[in-house]
Order: sequence, then structure tokens, then C-alpha cells
Amino acid sequence: MIDVKTAQDLVLKHSSVSSKILEVDLKDSLDFVLAEDVVSKIDMPPFRQSAMDGYALQISGAINYNVIGEIKAGDNNNPMLNIGEAVRIFTGAPVPDTANAVIMQEKVQVQGSKIITQMPLAMEMNIRPIGEQIKVGDIALTKGTAIKGAHIGFLAGLGVTKVAIYDKPSIAIVVTGNELKAPGNVLSFGEIYESNGAMLTAVLNELGYKKTSVIAVKDDYDSTKKTLKETIGNHDVVIISGGISVGDYDFVGKALNDIEVEEVFYKVKQKPGKPLFFGKKDTVSIFGLPGNPAAALSCFYIYVYPLLKKSEGALNTQLLSISLPLLTDYTAKGDRAQFLKARMHGAGVEILDGQSSAMVRAFGDANALVFLPEDCMQIRKGQKVKTILLPSK
Amino acid sequence: MIDVKTAQDLVLKHSSVSSKILEVDLKDSLDFVLAEDVVSKIDMPPFRQSAMDGYALQISGAINYNVIGEIKAGDNNNPMLNIGEAVRIFTGAPVPDTANAVIMQEKVQVQGSKIITQMPLAMEMNIRPIGEQIKVGDIALTKGTAIKGAHIGFLAGLGVTKVAIYDKPSIAIVVTGNELKAPGNVLSFGEIYESNGAMLTAVLNELGYKKTSVIAVKDDYDSTKKTLKETIGNHDVVIISGGISVGDYDFVGKALNDIEVEEVFYKVKQKPGKPLFFGKKDTVSIFGLPGNPAAALSCFYIYVYPLLKKSEGALNTQLLSISLPLLTDYTAKGDRAQFLKARMHGAGVEILDGQSSAMVRAFGDANALVFLPEDCMQIRKGQKVKTILLPSK
Repeated sequence: MIDVKTAQDLVLKHSSVSSKILEVDLKDSLDFVLAEDVVSKIDMPPFRQSAMDGYALQISGAINYNVIGEIKAGDNNNPMLNIGEAVRIFTGAPVPDTANAVIMQEKVQVQGSKIITQMPLAMEMNIRPIGEQIKVGDIALTKGTAIKGAHIGFLAGLGVTKVAIYDKPSIAIVVTGNELKAPGNVLSFGEIYESNGAMLTAVLNELGYKKTSVIAVKDDYDSTKKTLKETIGNHDVVIISGGISVGDYDFVGKALNDIEVEEVFYKVKQKPGKPLFFGKKDTVSIFGLPGNPAAALSCFYIYVYPLLKKSEGALNTQLLSISLPLLTDYTAKGDRAQFLKARMHGAGVEILDGQSSAMVRAFGDANALVFLPEDCMQIRKGQKVKTILLPSK
Repeated sequence: MIDVKTAQDLVLKHSSVSSKILEVDLKDSLDFVLAEDVVSKIDMPPFRQSAMDGYALQISGAINYNVIGEIKAGDNNNPMLNIGEAVRIFTGAPVPDTANAVIMQEKVQVQGSKIITQMPLAMEMNIRPIGEQIKVGDIALTKGTAIKGAHIGFLAGLGVTKVAIYDKPSIAIVVTGNELKAPGNVLSFGEIYESNGAMLTAVLNELGYKKTSVIAVKDDYDSTKKTLKETIGNHDVVIISGGISVGDYDFVGKALNDIEVEEVFYKVKQKPGKPLFFGKKDTVSIFGLPGNPAAALSCFYIYVYPLLKKSEGALNTQLLSISLPLLTDYTAKGDRAQFLKARMHGAGVEILDGQSSAMVRAFGDANALVFLPEDCMQIRKGQKVKTILLPSK
């Protein structure tokens, strides 16, 4: 049984970046990853820009300036100022080439067509220089950046309209188990409602993965093999929920073997999620997640998430983790590393009740997972723990 | 000029929960807020469920048990066990009423049709009791919960197929400024590219607000008034980007006044975002955000986000904030409270370079905003600061 770090490394080692690159409108690029550096075609700002409502002037030794005109944002006049002359100017407007300072309006006294400055002037004060934010030819955003709203604002400000992005993987969620009934039906004795398909679809959609499908198979060998073969043939990533175990009725393991899926690892020394399977068939990645919903979701964030991020070209493949003090003592049972549903608040992190693999309810209250390595089962209040931040909106 | 806390309180006080409630399929409820408590119609698990692959048995004093049958997940047989009898059982399968323990398969020795237990037995071991997660009639999720993927998994597991949610607000982004040109065109002297419309749309979409539109107005009084009046008439929230200032060419302030928008506040003692405006016209909320992109985005997260969350019925209206040690010394200038683009990593938070209101680039690198109150301008490394977590995926 391998440890968490080895398993995480193996997943990344066996995943590859999509070869499909698309050019899309900037507005459609949200949540995608840049497949090329974006180089600025302009200086930003493109002209010396007033940072204030006030007066642009050519500094003289005196405190009196003659106001000879006015420039609003969007105006394109560039009046010639002599020493001792000023123009009324507004935030965002182009500062005349012949002006060397802007004084804010609250710092002058107006007397007819003259102003009297009420503070010392400094060269280039309140003027944003050309290219202060970025210069023509500079890299605005690098390949591998996952595009957020702020990036779209930044690129739009540079006049960018199209970007090259990596395509996202198509993902199949295969749900197995004779005990599973679709919600909306009445349960017979021994049955439970299938929920991992809906849950993983929602979690994938939350993260911006829209090419998802849920495929249900019955627990018999022939249909399992046929469905898995077809599904692996049609998708980039296949997530199998439930069914991989040493149980006598595990058709999934046998079927994967017979359709020549290469096992990269099976079983990880962790809780929850010990029976995690990861395999490859050509370029397709296949995960076997535990059937218990909370265990499946933990494994998703720790192993599937990084593979998806890598496959869509992201430089940053991991959820953010920070080190936070535990808010109460905690003792873990057993000898496996643990991922615990947790809630950050105040100045630290609290491990939630309801850690059972079957209980997904605590995941709804969680905003983080706390990772306890296998040699670290007893933690005191105030001791720092690795805290993995779950996606949030 | 009011302070940040007063401004935040005024925004929430003047916002109201949507009266429009929709019933949607559970799978379509992601990112919406529950408008009613969801009550469980079943016990979960609905039967005594085996937590292991192993043997269900009726405990006797001895260590030998006769295996009289087998139960897989999904089977609905309920064999009658006498003392000293066992059945082979698999994870998730219903435990017979007459069994009072499950022993895992690794802890028995199999001899023909007998097993010999290798560990002490305890009553109800490895059996998940009926209703362990939730009982019929209990509240599964409360009204006001913002629905995440884990919640969808939890509710699907209870057989829920429909939920009542609050409708989301329709949001207009009005961009003002004669200096603004749409990306894709060539800039003349004095012009810059309009980017706040694209940025705010993307940020709203990231958060799950899809009913957005961008409306551009020219800087003249008549068109400003006409456009604002129409826009306020057709939307729940109007975000005006740029244009509210004491500048001589501020048509927005005049127009808002003339169409009888009630000013709740104008100007907040903060950096960036001092010239923030908030007003109401009947039930419509109107924000005037600074034109500088980074200032606009800070104000969005601190003031607009809570209003949107409240209007869609969320109990939790604020971004998560935690207290983190600063990773390097920092000295702020001025006497206003500050929101600083920052990055959490390691065991703390670092304030990023590029805090200028005009520079949105640092927002792309930021995963948090650090809030420094106005009486706290000099912070030493290790001192704890309020860290507001930005949405992340």
C-alpha cells in the first residue's frame, strides 16, 4: 500500500497536458487555462494620464498659474503650456506633453482665471507615466494561467479580444452498485439512492468542467466490461464510483484488467479513501473512487482535481494549502494519514464532527480539509496543521 | 465621510431578500440558495448497513460460526440467524435483523463452511444503524443554505429530486466615460480600452450570477439620464462603473438625483474606493463604483457581494475572513482604512506589490484581501491581520 505523497506524484506523472488548443473570445475564456503567453500590444496607460481631478501645469518658481484651458477624460487635445501656465484636468485625461505636474483641485485656490497652489509641487506628481502598468511587448499573462475575472479585466484593458486556451477534458462518471436506485423512486429493502453521480457532476460543474456525463452499470461482469470499454473509448477521464474492492463481486477490477487498463496504483494508506484505484489506458486516466460519498469527494479533491488541472494546462495543479493552528485538540484513530473535513474560522481551523466515509453532510459545512500525516495522530489546540482550502464562491 | 463598517451595515440594511421562489430539479440548484428547509423523507441509511466486507453474525460465546448464506449490496434477503450462525456480507449490504455484529473478512479464518473469529466481538460492530446520518422528518438542509456540490450529493442520497430556491437578481453594469473604447478598436490619443464591463461580468459569472448585461453610456446628461432610468426600471441591481465624482462633467450624480434615486451614502473612508456611491430606487439597489478597475473590484467584493448574497436569500452574506499573520512588515500611507491585494501561502499572508487603484493585475495574483483599519497603518511581520478570502476554484 503506497502513501499519499507517492500516490499524488504518480497521478501527476501519468497525466499529460491536452494537445487541443482553441482560440476563443476573451469573454468566453473564464476558467480556462492560457495555452500561450499574452503579450501586450499597447503601453498601459497609453498616454501620461491624470490620476486626479485638478490642474496640470508647467512648474514655475511661483504659486500663481494662469489657467488657459481644460481637458476631460476622452479629450484628445494637447495644449502647449508655457512655464507658469495650467489647464483644468480631470481624472483619466491625457496630461499635456508640456505639463510636468498635476495638483489636485482640493489643494488650489481659484481666483478667476488664475489658481494659487496651496502645497509644494513635485515633478510628475499625480501623473501616471506611459506604460506604468505594462509596456508594449511585455508579457501580460503567462501560459498556464487559469483565467479569473480579474485577468479578463486586465486583458480587456490591453485591448485583447481573443486568447488561446487549452480544451478541457471530457469526463465520465461511472456509477456501479446493484443497491443503487435513482432518486424519485421508492427504495426496496437493501437499496439506497444513487448520489455520487449527481454530486461529482455538480462538483465538476462548480470547477468549470462542463463536459460531464453519468453512466450507470449493473453489477455483472459483461455489462460492466462493455460499458467501461465504451466509456474509456469516448472520454479523457473516467471516474468510477464504487465497485473496486477485494469483494467476491467486484466486476470492475476484473473488467479493467481484461480491457488492458494499466494499474498505476491500487490502495493508498489514507483515511478515508484506502481502496483508491488509478490506472491508464493509452491517454485516458481512470480513477476508481470509493462508493462512500464523503470518501469519494475527498479523493476527488486530492487526486482527481490535480489531474484535471494538469490536463488543461494549469501551472498550479493543487488546491491552495496553508498552515493553520487547530482550534481544539484532536486525536485520530488508526495508522493511516487522514483527510478531515474542517472549517476555518477566527484564527484557525476546526475539525468537524461526522468524519465517517459515508457521511457527506459534513462536507457541506466544510471549507477545508485538514491533512494529518500518518505519524501525527494526536494534535493539540494551537498546533499548526496543513489546511487544504476547498473551492469557494 | 462614513467608515467601512457603517457603509457595510447600510448596504445590508437597505437590501432585501428576493420574493421570487422557484422550484427546480436538484441538479439545476447548484449555486442557488434554498428558499425552504429540506426535510428528509427517509432514514439514512434506511436499513442496518454493513460498513465492511466480512461476516454478519449472531454473537455466541464461541469463536466458531457456521456460514449459512451470503448477502451482497442490493440484495433484499433477510435470513434468520441463530446464535452461532453467520452470513457472508459485503459493504453496503443489509445486515439481517437477527445479526448483531459484522466482523471484517481480514479478521476471520475460513474453514469450509465455518469461520473462526480472530478478534473480540462487540455488539453492533461495523453496522451502520438505521438513521445514523439522518432520520425521517429531520431537517437535512436549512433555508438560506447556498447549495454546493456536496449538498447535492447529500440531498440526492435522501432521494430528493426538487428543491425550492430563490431567484437570483438581474444585474446591469453601466459603463460611463468618453475616454473608453471597446477592445478590438485602435485607440486615439486620450483613449483607453473599456474593461470594467467585461471584468465585472466575468466576476459575476464566476459567482453564479448569469443574468448580467453591460450598458455603455456617453458622458452627456441626456443620454446618461435616459439610460439610467431605463436600466433601473429593468434590473434588480445596477452597478455603475466610473463617473460619480465631484468633477464638473459628472452627469451620473445629477441624473441619479433627477430620477429620484435616494442616496444612502456617498464616499467611504477607505482606500481604494473612496468615491463609492450606494443608493436605492424602490427595491432596486444602485452602486456607483470607482472607474479604476482594481478599486472597482475591491468595492465589488466588500459591498456588492454581500448585497447580492442577501438578495438571493443566503444566510451567509460575507466572504470568509480569517485572522492570519503577516509574512513581512507593511506600512500603509494615509489615514483611510485599506483593502490590500494579498496572497496567502505558507503560514500567513503577504501583501502584494501593485496596490494602485488603476492596477488590476495584482488582483490576478491575489487570493485574498487584507483589511487594515484606519488606526492600524503599520504592521509588523507576524502580527495578525484580517484576511478576506477571495472566491477560488
